[in-house]
Amino acid sequence: MKAVRNIKLTISYDGSDYHGWQIQPGQKTVAGVLTEAIQGLVGAEVRVFGASRTDAGVNALGQVALVQIDSPIPTENLAKAISGRLPADIVVIGAAEMPAGFDVIGSVQSKLYRYDIYIGRFRPVLQIRHCWHLPAKLNIEAMAEACNLLVGKKDFKSFASAADNRESSVRTIFRCEVSSEKGWVYVDVEGDGFLYNMVRNIVGTLVEVGVGRLVPEKISEILEAKDRTAAGPLAPAAGLCLMWIKH
Amino acid sequence: MKAVRNIKLTISYDGSDYHGWQIQPGQKTVAGVLTEAIQGLVGAEVRVFGASRTDAGVNALGQVALVQIDSPIPTENLAKAISGRLPADIVVIGAAEMPAGFDVIGSVQSKLYRYDIYIGRFRPVLQIRHCWHLPAKLNIEAMAEACNLLVGKKDFKSFASAADNRESSVRTIFRCEVSSEKGWVYVDVEGDGFLYNMVRNIVGTLVEVGVGRLVPEKISEILEAKDRTAAGPLAPAAGLCLMWIKH
Repeated sequence: MKAVRNIKLTISYDGSDYHGWQIQPGQKTVAGVLTEAIQGLVGAEVRVFGASRTDAGVNALGQVALVQIDSPIPTENLAKAISGRLPADIVVIGAAEMPAGFDVIGSVQSKLYRYDIYIGRFRPVLQIRHCWHLPAKLNIEAMAEACNLLVGKKDFKSFASAADNRESSVRTIFRCEVSSEKGWVYVDVEGDGFLYNMVRNIVGTLVEVGVGRLVPEKISEILEAKDRTAAGPLAPAAGLCLMWIKH
Repeated sequence: MKAVRNIKLTISYDGSDYHGWQIQPGQKTVAGVLTEAIQGLVGAEVRVFGASRTDAGVNALGQVALVQIDSPIPTENLAKAISGRLPADIVVIGAAEMPAGFDVIGSVQSKLYRYDIYIGRFRPVLQIRHCWHLPAKLNIEAMAEACNLLVGKKDFKSFASAADNRESSVRTIFRCEVSSEKGWVYVDVEGDGFLYNMVRNIVGTLVEVGVGRLVPEKISEILEAKDRTAAGPLAPAAGLCLMWIKH
């Protein structure tokens, strides 16, 4: 009997040219391309389970996925070996052997997403695939006030797109911070989990605060409404990046 | 008689998806796409003259080009108006009216090119279109020594690819510097003009010094040889960016 190994992979990708993480028939997806690369390496069918289903156009520096293989390739060589079979916009940056029964979704402790906004007048051509170009004055202090009202264990139904049909919409946000530097504004959101489009809906709402269309205190009302239409618009996918996942 | 205006444009672009700056039949080029955008705006044929012919895959933050138009659009609105007709990977960031007879190539005082090298183990997926991924230890001090030997008015024939057939291969390099930060190594080369592939040949040679295959003093010998085969290999186009041009 072959020993099946449980391998946790850490993956970075530029999501611009992919229909998101999750495998879909007839579409180029990150998990699809990764699955093919691993199958080519180990010479057997595998299934890749991601800890996060990033949407079309969303990027990742630290996505995590689990795959079972029975290849003898040493764990320390796996990242390089798989990456050698991947296109330039996907790379495996880590591989670790996990005990049997490791639950890549259920055992997530925390995830950090970062959202990049460029507020300069002219689009930043070298970063345009990975940001929201929003040439506007943003009130960072007001946005920071609004961020504070999002921290904690709350019902985030108002920030979930309708497509989300998971039972509970209660999540815990550990940290929600806005920072700025030389024409760039960054929103960092760390939580134990996120509803469908939740970070992009939060960013869209924070921008409404930043441009002065909403007062920061409005966030509490939006949360209480438990209604998607209460919050601001969806921020574009390109600005979002999954930074890391802690298990 | 219509008053023809001489407009100097400053342009940024991600060169990844273009066959370089210069218009070529049947190829997508930056100047080609820019020309069409301006023609669409002013409703007349125009010719765009670039100050630098960047190669396929080379990027620019501050390319400069001259175009003659007889449109009444105010100069201060031109950058926005042209950019609105350009794809996301090209943008006009400045427009200025120049006197008749302004020579966009002949009056160049100085140009700065920057070359980005990433030396970390795993390719940086979000910057991979704009760097050379070279997972190696580079001796920055040795490279800096070699840089110093390139500064001045010299015959750079050894650093010109064979395709260059301009009369004189003497150019002045005002500055050649190497710096590093968090896995990145940058080479900045400022000069009054550059031969074909000159910066990429310089970077390829500096990397030979960085990895220890050449001693820094070898640069003087390479210059004296006036022979392309004396220098190191050509560095990839993606890492090169034309930062600015001074007139």
